[in-house]
Amino acid sequence: MSRVNSMDLALRARAEAVIPGGMYGHQSVALMPEGYPQFFARAEGAHLWDVDGNRYLDFMCGYGPNLFGYGHAAIDGAYIDQLRKGDAMTGPAAVMVEFAEALVGQVAHADWAMFCKNGSDANTMALMTARAHTGRKTVVLAHGAYHGAQPWSTPVPAGTTPDDRANQIFCEYNDVESLEKAVKQAGDDLAAIFASPIKHDVFVDQQLPAPEYAAAARRLCDQSGALLVVDDVRAGFRLARDCSWSLVDVKPDLSCWGKAIANGHPISALLGADVARKAASSIYVTGSYWFAAAAMAAGVETLKLIRETDYLEHTRRLGLALREGFAAAAARHGFSLRQTGPAELPLIMFDEDPGLKKGYAWCADMMRRGVYLHPWHNMFICQAMTDADIAGAVEAADGAFAALKAA
Amino acid sequence: MSRVNSMDLALRARAEAVIPGGMYGHQSVALMPEGYPQFFARAEGAHLWDVDGNRYLDFMCGYGPNLFGYGHAAIDGAYIDQLRKGDAMTGPAAVMVEFAEALVGQVAHADWAMFCKNGSDANTMALMTARAHTGRKTVVLAHGAYHGAQPWSTPVPAGTTPDDRANQIFCEYNDVESLEKAVKQAGDDLAAIFASPIKHDVFVDQQLPAPEYAAAARRLCDQSGALLVVDDVRAGFRLARDCSWSLVDVKPDLSCWGKAIANGHPISALLGADVARKAASSIYVTGSYWFAAAAMAAGVETLKLIRETDYLEHTRRLGLALREGFAAAAARHGFSLRQTGPAELPLIMFDEDPGLKKGYAWCADMMRRGVYLHPWHNMFICQAMTDADIAGAVEAADGAFAALKAA
Repeated sequence: MSRVNSMDLALRARAEAVIPGGMYGHQSVALMPEGYPQFFARAEGAHLWDVDGNRYLDFMCGYGPNLFGYGHAAIDGAYIDQLRKGDAMTGPAAVMVEFAEALVGQVAHADWAMFCKNGSDANTMALMTARAHTGRKTVVLAHGAYHGAQPWSTPVPAGTTPDDRANQIFCEYNDVESLEKAVKQAGDDLAAIFASPIKHDVFVDQQLPAPEYAAAARRLCDQSGALLVVDDVRAGFRLARDCSWSLVDVKPDLSCWGKAIANGHPISALLGADVARKAASSIYVTGSYWFAAAAMAAGVETLKLIRETDYLEHTRRLGLALREGFAAAAARHGFSLRQTGPAELPLIMFDEDPGLKKGYAWCADMMRRGVYLHPWHNMFICQAMTDADIAGAVEAADGAFAALKAA
Repeated sequence: MSRVNSMDLALRARAEAVIPGGMYGHQSVALMPEGYPQFFARAEGAHLWDVDGNRYLDFMCGYGPNLFGYGHAAIDGAYIDQLRKGDAMTGPAAVMVEFAEALVGQVAHADWAMFCKNGSDANTMALMTARAHTGRKTVVLAHGAYHGAQPWSTPVPAGTTPDDRANQIFCEYNDVESLEKAVKQAGDDLAAIFASPIKHDVFVDQQLPAPEYAAAARRLCDQSGALLVVDDVRAGFRLARDCSWSLVDVKPDLSCWGKAIANGHPISALLGADVARKAASSIYVTGSYWFAAAAMAAGVETLKLIRETDYLEHTRRLGLALREGFAAAAARHGFSLRQTGPAELPLIMFDEDPGLKKGYAWCADMMRRGVYLHPWHNMFICQAMTDADIAGAVEAADGAFAALKAA
């Protein structure tokens, strides 16, 4: 089961010359098991082909953007139609208003929308809006949560200063006591509490939000006048046809969106409640392509599919089937897995696996068997996956568990 | 010469409900003369149509992205072809390496490239790279220069904290003495000097870079080990087929790019010299769509046009003809204009015009005559403009000066 990878190696050598470190950011395979391809040639539906022609069932879905399938005809068609009319013009098109209306109609807590390009942008705009609204500086965040890669938020300190991270207090996700302690520490300077919709930090088990934690975050914001921010960039519309914290019955004041909202076309958004409207209109944020129309047209089409299809039930059902199939196959070969978080966002860790050695070896073998899994970042189920895809992945897993057992 | 604007007004009313303040950022017309349309229906070549069907010769070019004409067949074709193969996949495509190679081949100081989405991203990455490279914090910037709209750079303080702007010292553009003083003030903590390629601040006359200012910036960085950053997001490839400071014979260590590099498709870039390669590979920056392939394919096609066409000579010639035509028409009606900066990036201010009243009235009239001008932000000439377009604009200007005189 060796794969051809000569084109990938040749491209890596060229990249090494013209890209620092050969690659950067979350799509670098530097921390992935050996044998993961860096470069891809094609994507369609739920599948990827690397530059050497190897095909994969892709459980990373572009790290989240692919919700309805790569190359979705109606969504890409909407993008191309709008591109032919006008995209990055001297002002926005009518579709900007339509997309804002669609999001406000879909997300219960939201009364308004602002568009940007990166998930980082939406989180930074939430931070600025909360500070403008309250006239205060301090934000409470959960240890290990990812809210983007700007100087105030990037998980790696290189190139940042202590000033970039001033006015931040950390708590533990789902730990009400630590949240209360952090808020108390903020004193009368609390501007916002940031929350991931689920704990989907890298390298560790996921956690669904404890309803009492979400309720406490809401209550503490209400008591102090601070704003509650849910960062739904990664999970948004994958767990609910609304903000993910609708599942625990808590409405944030601000929520951050991206990735799936236009099925991979480049747009992100900050949504907000009326309470934060004036503050949001007072901050100056912008970008060269933030008013470009084509991604908004793709977003309008994506929202239509979110409203009108059973994608949510389908991805949940497939996610559960995958989870059950993997668990049973693992058990047959004497392995015990921790599959945490929502089934639509799988994360698979092996019990008794210091250094993730089993996980790395198993993922590397799954890759050779044509299934792209990630050993330490949550994955994604997309609407283009079928029962046969899941059955094939489970069958591959059975072989890979057997091989791991034999090794 | 009244224009229909009922569709625009209807869209503004809808936007008021779902977008804070009705619009935000640089494409809001809140600070423009009355009668400027907010929403556009279509763009082609050098022309825009607003949602009420009014047609404009567009001297804003999308605030910079439109270099080769809206809807350019070859560039948009490259985008669509790559979109159909794969765009926001689980890893980059080969075209990422090709685009990096094309930029490194085109920009003399550059040995490597990193891609991002906003001009703000490229500037922030330059800041982080310089701090990682030097282990120091302080940056010297010119008063009034725009380097993006993140908390450390946005021109409006709302929602930002003093900590966001820590470690910044300001000088006056083109004033060597003030630059030397700022560097001296940084002491042994200088990480970078940021420079706009020209002074293209809003609301004031533009200035070409004084060669002695650029040379001093280079010398001061060499002496201190700090990095020199040229922010070419707005002017890049509009003044030279290289970094804009090639015109004053100074090579920066880092340069920031965006807008025109893919003719409006969403991508920006940080380019750097070998000296900064290791530091650039040490920072963690990323974004949901930074590795998306379609905009890179558009960029490769744009670079080909930059290499192989006379766009630069064409836009310069048209810019000069526009400048001469406007100056002569103004003089005929007793007005004196200040047309500053490079002819390819026009900025037109009236002498004796406190509060820009003449400028606003004249621009509003030019708009009614089908020419989209900006009263306080530099404009752009694009390759799709023709001699007839320029002659038409000059003829419109003659009428608008006459009307202004009469008023």
